Amino acid sequence: MASDNNQESSVLKELPKIAWTRLKGCSDKVVSTVMCPVRDAKNLGKQDPRRITHSCKVGLAVTLVSLLYYFDFLYDGFGVSAMWAVMTVIIIFDFTVGATLGKGVNRGVATLIGGALGLAAHRLTSFNGRIVEFSVLGFFIFLISALATFIRFFPKVQARYDYGLLVFILSFCLISVSGYRNDEVMLMAYRRLSTVMIGGVLTVFISIFVCPIWAGEDLHNLTANNIEKLGIFMEGFERRYFETNNDKKQEKKASPDGYITVINSKSTADTLVNVAKWEPRHGRFKYWHPWEQYLKIGANTRECACKIDALNCYLNSKIQTPMEIREKIQEPCTTISQQCSHALRELSVGIKKMSSPAMLSDPHIKNAEAAAKSLESLLQNGKWLEIDFRDMIPAAAVALLLIEMVSCTAKLADSVHELASMSKFRAPYDNAVKANQTCLERVVVVTRVSNDHKVSLLC
Amino acid sequence: MASDNNQESSVLKELPKIAWTRLKGCSDKVVSTVMCPVRDAKNLGKQDPRRITHSCKVGLAVTLVSLLYYFDFLYDGFGVSAMWAVMTVIIIFDFTVGATLGKGVNRGVATLIGGALGLAAHRLTSFNGRIVEFSVLGFFIFLISALATFIRFFPKVQARYDYGLLVFILSFCLISVSGYRNDEVMLMAYRRLSTVMIGGVLTVFISIFVCPIWAGEDLHNLTANNIEKLGIFMEGFERRYFETNNDKKQEKKASPDGYITVINSKSTADTLVNVAKWEPRHGRFKYWHPWEQYLKIGANTRECACKIDALNCYLNSKIQTPMEIREKIQEPCTTISQQCSHALRELSVGIKKMSSPAMLSDPHIKNAEAAAKSLESLLQNGKWLEIDFRDMIPAAAVALLLIEMVSCTAKLADSVHELASMSKFRAPYDNAVKANQTCLERVVVVTRVSNDHKVSLLC
Repeated sequence: MASDNNQESSVLKELPKIAWTRLKGCSDKVVSTVMCPVRDAKNLGKQDPRRITHSCKVGLAVTLVSLLYYFDFLYDGFGVSAMWAVMTVIIIFDFTVGATLGKGVNRGVATLIGGALGLAAHRLTSFNGRIVEFSVLGFFIFLISALATFIRFFPKVQARYDYGLLVFILSFCLISVSGYRNDEVMLMAYRRLSTVMIGGVLTVFISIFVCPIWAGEDLHNLTANNIEKLGIFMEGFERRYFETNNDKKQEKKASPDGYITVINSKSTADTLVNVAKWEPRHGRFKYWHPWEQYLKIGANTRECACKIDALNCYLNSKIQTPMEIREKIQEPCTTISQQCSHALRELSVGIKKMSSPAMLSDPHIKNAEAAAKSLESLLQNGKWLEIDFRDMIPAAAVALLLIEMVSCTAKLADSVHELASMSKFRAPYDNAVKANQTCLERVVVVTRVSNDHKVSLLC
Repeated sequence: MASDNNQESSVLKELPKIAWTRLKGCSDKVVSTVMCPVRDAKNLGKQDPRRITHSCKVGLAVTLVSLLYYFDFLYDGFGVSAMWAVMTVIIIFDFTVGATLGKGVNRGVATLIGGALGLAAHRLTSFNGRIVEFSVLGFFIFLISALATFIRFFPKVQARYDYGLLVFILSFCLISVSGYRNDEVMLMAYRRLSTVMIGGVLTVFISIFVCPIWAGEDLHNLTANNIEKLGIFMEGFERRYFETNNDKKQEKKASPDGYITVINSKSTADTLVNVAKWEPRHGRFKYWHPWEQYLKIGANTRECACKIDALNCYLNSKIQTPMEIREKIQEPCTTISQQCSHALRELSVGIKKMSSPAMLSDPHIKNAEAAAKSLESLLQNGKWLEIDFRDMIPAAAVALLLIEMVSCTAKLADSVHELASMSKFRAPYDNAVKANQTCLERVVVVTRVSNDHKVSLLC
């Protein structure tokens, strides 16, 4: 009995503690549930701070356009139609300047044409007989909206003028059908057009002049980064293929599998090209910048990425060639993978800096091609015949893939060189000379402090 | 002189002919320029006749909603707000039921929440002092639109609720800012909500009940067709790899390169999955059909397509193994490619008919696996050692790829079987029994006519 009492009292003593722990656990859960989206939002903002800028720009534009309601002289002019301006701002304000401009132009032109046609339809049908009038109007509305909807299926139209056709149908129907009830249809059409223009111009202005986000810049960087990702894979490949298993496990954590995003990058690139075409001259990009060429580079990059995917399969394959056999082809394979990596990185840097990469990448490609030839002859002279045949096949397949990778890289380099000549990238020696000059200046400064070691670090 | 005169007269005689030919050439050009889009439109309609249906449905919906303007008792109720109904129809009517429903629900709910918040903001700020009122309102507008724009960047939100957030900003701004000028803001909010609802319900009704186009059906067929394309490639592969060059040239015209579209099908499938989730029970698809599983099948299909791409590279490669050496591995390679092709086709047919394909595809996969094992041992026992090593490598690489293709096909089959068990596909014996029964009935009928040859043809 005494021990029972002791137990009870100890349980009673512990009760507040248990309750407190549970309560704390519950509150922690609630806090984590609430904080999870906040953390996600923080990450989203960190990944690309331009998202925060864009959100603030939209807020600013909407607030500014609301002023149409505040000032009497503006509101008296437009009345309820002021809402079209607010709508236009909210709908056409997109993340990039190109997308905003594209939507803006589409909306403006489509409102003009749709409105004019709507007016014409209204005039045509406004003869005596209410039923006849509405029947003819109904026929026009059916015809125009069905036709315009069908035209939206044309692939070229869909890529660039889809939104325009939507607004065209909208404007036509609103003006023609409102005209049926409203005699001031001309005034209405004028108000709709002018408010859409005000909203559009304000949006485009803020989009271009307040921290602009250019789709062309994004496309350019995407192209360069994709090529860099391939370079990163190729750099690490020979190390991972010709090392012992223990090292491989450590390496795996930092596995450079960025190339997978490259394979799936087609739709993003297509959208960016379509949008970039709307953008005016900006930063380093002139009028008529050859945006289409980026699609060609993208296709070649994806081809390389597919080869890399196959190489990666052999890295993780169950059937493996023993290391002592692999070592027989290590030298040319290492050269190919390093030289390809260097070439790809030079191409990427060349695109980023808009300096022609030919002089810097071509030597690496030539080295890789020479190594590929020596690898090919190594495979052909049959030195391996002493070795067990079954062990050899995966390594031979890797060797063949590496040889193909060289020609693939050369093809990619050609398309980048085409871009460089089309958009007149600077000659690389400009940079080299500049870099040398800067380096020399630093040398002079540092030698004054007299420390040879520092000079070599700085250069 | 006489000959000169003759020449001149002959030129004069030919002049009308030349003029006629040129005029005809010009008119032909004009006709072809005009007819080109017409021909394109015809092709678009032929490729997918549902495009024409959809266009007519949009025309019908817009015409019907215009009746709001025609009938006095309707127009008296809504007035100018009737245009929101027209706008709603034009904007939310999408190609598939799922997309239309998704946009409709987004628009409806967002109008409700945005309108309510707008009303609240209007009430909160409607105290004395015009400048104070508008400043506080402006602050709210900035805050809400910036915040909602930022939320649109969350990937999950972007996939399903992007349009909803846009409409939310729109409704909030329109109601709150119009309230500043219009005392009947409650009536306005009510009218906006009810007209949006009318437009939405009409659109969804026509979309579902007049020749519906289901995204789920499209996704299902896309998945089945993609797998079929791989089957078509594998069927033709062994013929093209083990045939003489002359035959290959003839074959090349009908090269089955449908697998390339499979590699690039990710974004289409992603969109369709997002849209299909909005669709109610229809046809063969029940509530909570496992749409996500199609993404898994799609990923496995693309993995197979990448392997096929590599195989295709070896078909067109410059370095080729001589035919007499290839023939040494012809038997297992042929078996693998044929059995994989059969298995892939069975999987595709199984998905199309929604009957569990395990019983029909698994035997083929087992055969392929057995052939892969025998090919592996053929490669390992080194019979080829007599042959020149360099010649052998490409064929060995093809053999390795085929072995990998078998495991890849098995993985794909597993994901299809998962789908089959998740969505309770019929057991295949149902079909087999039915087919047998039908066949037997035919046999009975035909044997009455007594012709054994015909029976075998009919079965």
